[in-house]
Amino acid sequence: MNLNEIIENIQIPNKDMEKKAWDKINQKTKPLGSLGMLEEIAVKICAYQESLNPKLTNKSIFTYAADHGIAAEGVSAFPQEVTSQMVFNFLNKGAAINVFCDHNNIDLTVIDIGVNYDFEESPNLINKKIAKGTKNFLTQGAMTEDEAVSSIQAGIDLFMDKHNKKPMDIIGLGEMGIGNTTSSSAIISCITGRSVESTTGRGTGIDDERLRHKINIIQKGIEFHKPDKSNAIDILRKIGGFEIGGIMGTALAAAYHRVPVILDGIISTTGGLLAYLLCEDVSHYLFSAHRSVEQGQKIALDFMKIVPLLDLNMRLGEGTGAALAMNIFGASVKVMTNMASFEEAGVSGKS
Amino acid sequence: MNLNEIIENIQIPNKDMEKKAWDKINQKTKPLGSLGMLEEIAVKICAYQESLNPKLTNKSIFTYAADHGIAAEGVSAFPQEVTSQMVFNFLNKGAAINVFCDHNNIDLTVIDIGVNYDFEESPNLINKKIAKGTKNFLTQGAMTEDEAVSSIQAGIDLFMDKHNKKPMDIIGLGEMGIGNTTSSSAIISCITGRSVESTTGRGTGIDDERLRHKINIIQKGIEFHKPDKSNAIDILRKIGGFEIGGIMGTALAAAYHRVPVILDGIISTTGGLLAYLLCEDVSHYLFSAHRSVEQGQKIALDFMKIVPLLDLNMRLGEGTGAALAMNIFGASVKVMTNMASFEEAGVSGKS
Repeated sequence: MNLNEIIENIQIPNKDMEKKAWDKINQKTKPLGSLGMLEEIAVKICAYQESLNPKLTNKSIFTYAADHGIAAEGVSAFPQEVTSQMVFNFLNKGAAINVFCDHNNIDLTVIDIGVNYDFEESPNLINKKIAKGTKNFLTQGAMTEDEAVSSIQAGIDLFMDKHNKKPMDIIGLGEMGIGNTTSSSAIISCITGRSVESTTGRGTGIDDERLRHKINIIQKGIEFHKPDKSNAIDILRKIGGFEIGGIMGTALAAAYHRVPVILDGIISTTGGLLAYLLCEDVSHYLFSAHRSVEQGQKIALDFMKIVPLLDLNMRLGEGTGAALAMNIFGASVKVMTNMASFEEAGVSGKS
Repeated sequence: MNLNEIIENIQIPNKDMEKKAWDKINQKTKPLGSLGMLEEIAVKICAYQESLNPKLTNKSIFTYAADHGIAAEGVSAFPQEVTSQMVFNFLNKGAAINVFCDHNNIDLTVIDIGVNYDFEESPNLINKKIAKGTKNFLTQGAMTEDEAVSSIQAGIDLFMDKHNKKPMDIIGLGEMGIGNTTSSSAIISCITGRSVESTTGRGTGIDDERLRHKINIIQKGIEFHKPDKSNAIDILRKIGGFEIGGIMGTALAAAYHRVPVILDGIISTTGGLLAYLLCEDVSHYLFSAHRSVEQGQKIALDFMKIVPLLDLNMRLGEGTGAALAMNIFGASVKVMTNMASFEEAGVSGKS
């Protein structure tokens, strides 16, 4: 399916099932509402699955890797080759995302959607490369319009292929790409209208001087391109990244299939924000794993009215927050399926 | 061991091992500090275990159940018999704590330390009953001094017995007892000096009128007893509960054995606060699972300078927050043991 077909066919979750799910969870042996956000998650997933006994068996994380031309401006604390080196680290199961996926029994898919390196074929690395990195958006468009649409389509296709083979019950979206917080902060400022100072953080850990430089670069890039703030494709092609396009596409495809999407840090959330700009209804299926240290992420979440689940002072990316939060989702649906009701347990109600 | 021996022998975690743990975690393939609170947890557990390859294999939760004489004043939305009914629900594995412990592979121990019900012997229910509920603290001491010390000792003994048979790597502390948020808010006000209005919440879900009544009852109870705010035993016997004493004792015994303790909601945190009043060094081993909706809990945590991990709008108790947070602890130590270093992975450092 192509992007337009997806967008036109994203459905609002079944309201009747939501009501039935609330009725069921309110009979469980606990004070009304006392499981807070877990109850809201459980009810939403009942609505997606149109079942009062939902399951989250097949848990998946897609981690998209891509390089960024803007890295040439010295906006990151790490050199560009770290992107490809970290892809090898993913393949060798040595990165945080590998450890957390293993910890919570999550299937991890690593995608080269635009790394500036020629990887050999590997069964563990999906090749969806659009180009060997974006162009430097300070002086030219990060990508062509064709490339922008292709990166989104790659995210759609990958989700569809995997989902057709083995349906996913939940998906988290992560990324790797030196320079990609710069692109993300630029996009968030562009869409929300908030100042670049407010959306820009220290990424991998830059000092005050480099932070000022990063803010300056983003401001110049936005001024140079003047992206249309209501046009997600225009924004993506001018100041975006291939992994951000891939995340957009997968978020939209997952929402089309009514699969809950857990956004991770600022880059992943930026992909969600661009998907939201294309189709507001995608937000019915979007969750935020955690509040990132990278400050622009919260601004993007507020724009979509999404509340982050965890707040652990993290800023690693890769999908690590999503991998941790997925355990909470698993517990949520078990409230629905495994807890006794007041009647079943013979427990008295409110006096 | 008795209470005084425990208190006198709680050690400060090994500073040298902490430093070595920071050195090791700072070499892992991630920006420095980017895993936030997970790094702090991992380092602390290295210090406890005096190992750079810590393990959290045996995970345990103790859920102490007891009744409260103050329930006669109509401070809860539920009748007192719900305490014993919920114990049966625990034994039948139908409660939220059962579901979450099962979800995260945690061994659950349920203890009758003072329920107003005569349970038959059961291999799944530990009998440490001090009395069939406390007395109504509005007009008399909740318990005698002997009972107070016995409840703490019961918590120590239980931890020691289980730990000697099969050492625990981490423990969470939960409870069940209709009326016990009333006792907890009273204790927190007493120790921190904060107003009863600020420490008192809606417990299982009382309305505005009953909340005003609950605050009034607590104020009268404190005025009647005038507990010595620096004397944990005096506070416990006058306005406390048996489960709170049990939690105190287990927290102290775990700290003595350098086992991390995860506090849960307001009642569990009150047990931690009384343990802290007896021995400040216990706080080196105390963690807070989550920020509870029950507002006094945060006041108690602030007093001990402990930052809660999760904030999921929960207020259920039983140890449910601790059971969810334990998954984060598990992920933390695997950062230390399973992630590759920059050198191992051939990833470049900061440029």
